[in-house]
Amino acid sequence: MTYGHLDQLAINTIRVLAVDATFKANSGHPGAPMGMAPVSHVLFNKFMKFNPKNPKWLNRDRFVLSNGHGCMLQYALLHLFGYDVTIKDLEEFRKIDSRTPGHPEANDTPGVEVTTGPLGQGFANAVGLAIAQANTAATFNKPGYNLVDNYTYTFFGDGCAMEGVACEAASTAGHLQLGNLIAIYDDNHISIDGDTKVAFTEDVLKRFEAYGWHTQWVKDGDHDLEGIEAAIAKAREVKDKPSVIKLTTTIGFGSKLQGTGGVHGNPLKEDDCKAVKAKFGFDPEQFFVVPQEVYDSYHKHAAEGAALEAEWNQLFEKYGKEYKAEHADLSRRLSGLLPEGWEKKLPTYKPTDAAIASRKLSEAVLEAIHDVVPELIGGSADLTGSNNTRWSNAVDFQPPVLGIGDWAGRYIRYGVREHSMAAIMNGICAYGTLIPFGGTFLNFVSYAAGAVRLSAISHDRVIYVATHDSIGLGEDGPTHQPIETLAHFRALPNCMVWRPADGNETSAAYYIALTSKHTPSILALTRQNLPQLENSTIENAIKGGYVAVENPNADITLLATGSEVSLVIDTVKELKEKHGVTARVVSLPCFEVFDAQSKEYRLSVLPDGIPSLSVEVMSTLGWERYSHEQFGLNRFGASGAYKDVYKKFEFTPEGIAKRALATIDFYKGTKPRSPINRAFQQLI
Amino acid sequence: MTYGHLDQLAINTIRVLAVDATFKANSGHPGAPMGMAPVSHVLFNKFMKFNPKNPKWLNRDRFVLSNGHGCMLQYALLHLFGYDVTIKDLEEFRKIDSRTPGHPEANDTPGVEVTTGPLGQGFANAVGLAIAQANTAATFNKPGYNLVDNYTYTFFGDGCAMEGVACEAASTAGHLQLGNLIAIYDDNHISIDGDTKVAFTEDVLKRFEAYGWHTQWVKDGDHDLEGIEAAIAKAREVKDKPSVIKLTTTIGFGSKLQGTGGVHGNPLKEDDCKAVKAKFGFDPEQFFVVPQEVYDSYHKHAAEGAALEAEWNQLFEKYGKEYKAEHADLSRRLSGLLPEGWEKKLPTYKPTDAAIASRKLSEAVLEAIHDVVPELIGGSADLTGSNNTRWSNAVDFQPPVLGIGDWAGRYIRYGVREHSMAAIMNGICAYGTLIPFGGTFLNFVSYAAGAVRLSAISHDRVIYVATHDSIGLGEDGPTHQPIETLAHFRALPNCMVWRPADGNETSAAYYIALTSKHTPSILALTRQNLPQLENSTIENAIKGGYVAVENPNADITLLATGSEVSLVIDTVKELKEKHGVTARVVSLPCFEVFDAQSKEYRLSVLPDGIPSLSVEVMSTLGWERYSHEQFGLNRFGASGAYKDVYKKFEFTPEGIAKRALATIDFYKGTKPRSPINRAFQQLI
Repeated sequence: MTYGHLDQLAINTIRVLAVDATFKANSGHPGAPMGMAPVSHVLFNKFMKFNPKNPKWLNRDRFVLSNGHGCMLQYALLHLFGYDVTIKDLEEFRKIDSRTPGHPEANDTPGVEVTTGPLGQGFANAVGLAIAQANTAATFNKPGYNLVDNYTYTFFGDGCAMEGVACEAASTAGHLQLGNLIAIYDDNHISIDGDTKVAFTEDVLKRFEAYGWHTQWVKDGDHDLEGIEAAIAKAREVKDKPSVIKLTTTIGFGSKLQGTGGVHGNPLKEDDCKAVKAKFGFDPEQFFVVPQEVYDSYHKHAAEGAALEAEWNQLFEKYGKEYKAEHADLSRRLSGLLPEGWEKKLPTYKPTDAAIASRKLSEAVLEAIHDVVPELIGGSADLTGSNNTRWSNAVDFQPPVLGIGDWAGRYIRYGVREHSMAAIMNGICAYGTLIPFGGTFLNFVSYAAGAVRLSAISHDRVIYVATHDSIGLGEDGPTHQPIETLAHFRALPNCMVWRPADGNETSAAYYIALTSKHTPSILALTRQNLPQLENSTIENAIKGGYVAVENPNADITLLATGSEVSLVIDTVKELKEKHGVTARVVSLPCFEVFDAQSKEYRLSVLPDGIPSLSVEVMSTLGWERYSHEQFGLNRFGASGAYKDVYKKFEFTPEGIAKRALATIDFYKGTKPRSPINRAFQQLI
Repeated sequence: MTYGHLDQLAINTIRVLAVDATFKANSGHPGAPMGMAPVSHVLFNKFMKFNPKNPKWLNRDRFVLSNGHGCMLQYALLHLFGYDVTIKDLEEFRKIDSRTPGHPEANDTPGVEVTTGPLGQGFANAVGLAIAQANTAATFNKPGYNLVDNYTYTFFGDGCAMEGVACEAASTAGHLQLGNLIAIYDDNHISIDGDTKVAFTEDVLKRFEAYGWHTQWVKDGDHDLEGIEAAIAKAREVKDKPSVIKLTTTIGFGSKLQGTGGVHGNPLKEDDCKAVKAKFGFDPEQFFVVPQEVYDSYHKHAAEGAALEAEWNQLFEKYGKEYKAEHADLSRRLSGLLPEGWEKKLPTYKPTDAAIASRKLSEAVLEAIHDVVPELIGGSADLTGSNNTRWSNAVDFQPPVLGIGDWAGRYIRYGVREHSMAAIMNGICAYGTLIPFGGTFLNFVSYAAGAVRLSAISHDRVIYVATHDSIGLGEDGPTHQPIETLAHFRALPNCMVWRPADGNETSAAYYIALTSKHTPSILALTRQNLPQLENSTIENAIKGGYVAVENPNADITLLATGSEVSLVIDTVKELKEKHGVTARVVSLPCFEVFDAQSKEYRLSVLPDGIPSLSVEVMSTLGWERYSHEQFGLNRFGASGAYKDVYKKFEFTPEGIAKRALATIDFYKGTKPRSPINRAFQQLI
């Protein structure tokens, strides 16, 4: 087809809106929107199916702006197509509590699929969205019922192309042959440091070819709308590979500073704004103007999308008659609720049961619930046998042509790519039909920190199965033994960090993780065996903290998590028998969940008037919030058999008793206030 | 040349030592050493120059085992060539406090250049070592004095090849045309999840070609010693590109389980150990046996290395006569000491000086000291203008052929690659002649967490210039506003986290960062302007914490860091004028340095008997160690002008005063103990 005046007008409207919004905010990035307006116009108006009136329609095409700093591009498109993003919202760009924050946030803006801005994340999210689409299609589509056949499109810039997380994700996408994924690379040769020739001279398309992608190059992304259309059309036809289209554009197209770093991260100067508007046939004195014919054209496309959804709804209804169970399952998944009674499958343990490593207890949970929670889709960053993340009859998620799995498979081989695993999980979660979990060693969740942060910001229900959670991993040594990791993620808002002490606590961790629709969880699990404890029940543990050993006239409260709970229970005996001292024990598997309990309950667990000592074999930072004194490891660990390592650092009943006695002595004659009692409430 | 019996014997000796050590430890990874013994033999015995008696000789070739789990390979080589690694050390593989920990640690084992194991890090360290070599050569070599011309070799496996950090570093190395870097890719098709076909099917050599590397493939890495030699020789000749040699090997070569995942991370079974030894002509009943002719051959090569060093020492002495200043400079750099009197160049400020953002104050330090501290080599992950990391007349470190810098340049364009920037800095530091610093936003230091951890484990003097350190960055919003980041790195052992409040504190941070030879530093710096404070001096601030406003009869101590110090000073006035309350103020720019002061000093700063409130606009986790009550932000931030964001979250004199009053009220009638007074000393 050919393009004409209206197309150019629409493109320039997008550009001018971006110019106006960044100018008014006196902040933001006009360059990318001005450069990518042409491809956006072609993609959104010619190819993408979506219904602005229902941004959550399952079979919509997904769009991810990985170069999220260019968000005025996305906000302009959302407004023009009729999403609930008004001109006033655009005027409030980058203002407090607006719908148009400085980077796209999925929870703030209708039509934004995932939260982007930290570079490379969106690209990897898009891979996750495409995986979820393929898996959902294979699970639910039936002959005559192509319920799920959407594409995932992503824009990314040089910054994303350089980031390791995107490189990892691109390699995974190539391996997985995700034909439903189309990435458009904004090759504008500019990053914040100016011309990319200073740091980035690789052949990007050749790299993607090496990953197994289909590659195309549109050399004039500023004007060649036909070329853009042809490339996207071709990419849609390629079903056995993800596609990348390198689109050479001029950043800040139309500005006096076009093609330079000057237009990347700063609004245009006033005279430049006016000149741009004049050049594009807009009134230089007017702001936030949208020609009616642009609205009309875009609303027409939106109405076609709405009609497609209406058709789809009928199809889905008909599907429900023929495939009742599948219809119910998919509907339930979309509601975010788990199947009724699923929790009855959670394993429970008696104190007489064998000692088991919590990574194995986690495996037992997955083994027990994977049938009743079919939206669970797991994987590991190449540590399957160590993380125990794969249930026994799992099928790999793989392109069927490889002969080692299929699209309906629920086990993903992420490779040694922790960061992209996490970012891909965020994308899978955002699709709406699956709950992803992924394994690595706790220490290497740090490699994924950028993406874990976005799980939390985005309210993603994803589960990090983080095994080998301490010096207890033993011989691999300090480079693999986490010290700072729990403190790191405990300080991250909206993230639950669980460190269960035994089987019931592990089941409780999964219970809360799976029923918390808007919060990611990190499960810190041991390599070594843990005994089943007396007072540990799912009911106790889901409170985040509880009394594991009560002693009404105790001289001290000992707090611990995970592998140290049984150790402090052993210490109670040591203290009683050798020192005539009475101790009580609190297990605190999850700070964040404990904090959410009533003050009354928390004070019953950590009462006033009794000194307390916490024990955890890693950084003590943050434990001061719950205990008066802390025994931990504020140094790196050591390579050796795990019992030797514990002994070296005095994590033995004797070593703990020594510090408990020092604590009792220190507080003698005082009635220390419980750390739960505070002067004022924190902002949350 | 041709290879014969002795070569094969040496190769098999390496294999058998790895089999024995992992068997005795009942832990470890025999597969990679058995597969890579042939290339190790050729590389170490035919090409590498080193003197085992002086592992720190400047012009030695560097070797990095990026697949660090295969460390028995390296330990065996170090032993055989005569480094101070004995057979007893090999027998104590993976035992507590041995010289042969589970992964190579630079501080534990003579001859280990960098700490590896966390995958991808070593590869990126090697890029750093190669950068440092090129820069040092360009700075010090003179006609007739090729003082520095060593190569950097690295082995890496599939795991490293998949990790984003290595992908980023490979792209950088290609751009920089590092002809002195030779990477050998152990293409054994096995990772922990088994055959790499489940997750990793890209064309690795093509990818490296796309980065601009010279690529070769040796198809039979198990037997083709001539081919290996020819490939390495060719790679050494390629001066304008880094080289990668893909070496197809059989993991666990010689074992019954060779070529499978079974031999990757587990010792061989006893019968397999015996069979391997028998196959290789060793006595199956003997352990840790080294044929004398292998020692003789390797010691001969070591002696040649010692002779090379002796020649080099003469050359360097002669150089000293001709190039006195350069000789003195290089000698001093190698000692790790800074030039005498350098600290006099540090900027100082008076309270009447203008308010300046601490990122600009950091720039002023770099501007002032870069001439007197010539070993400083800086850069940024594509945020040069925002991080203010480049002094005004800086020259880029670039291949001269690009026309935008030269090898002696001291400013590195890392691109949008935070993780590899950090890992490359670790490598630069390990070379021994340079002190690297690198900039990004504080929030994106998290992308580099894996490498920052290794800076700390490895005792690397590297400096992270982490700007835009809080919600004070404003409009970019929650995805860019750190909340958990300071807690994360405060919990990391051997890492200084500085958050200076003004100019003198910024100079103090640099003073301690640069004079701490074995500790990395993170400098958290503001985007927004900060006033110069009354009591702030370099002398005060280098204690990590000091009294910024004293008031003998104060009702409360207010603690803060960075941008919040001036805010709590404003609050003192608010409290006095509106509430008749007297407050004192403590600035605590660095927890770790404050912790190292005498208890007497710390108690003078945070005395008993007075309640305290800390104020920092991010997670409060960890502040309980210094204050009774905490005001912070245990939620994500907001996008808006920075003053609006501060106001939204009540970080104003009024908001702080409200909480100060609540604190005073809560502790009324009590004499709270200083948080400095503790029941027992922590293990450090």
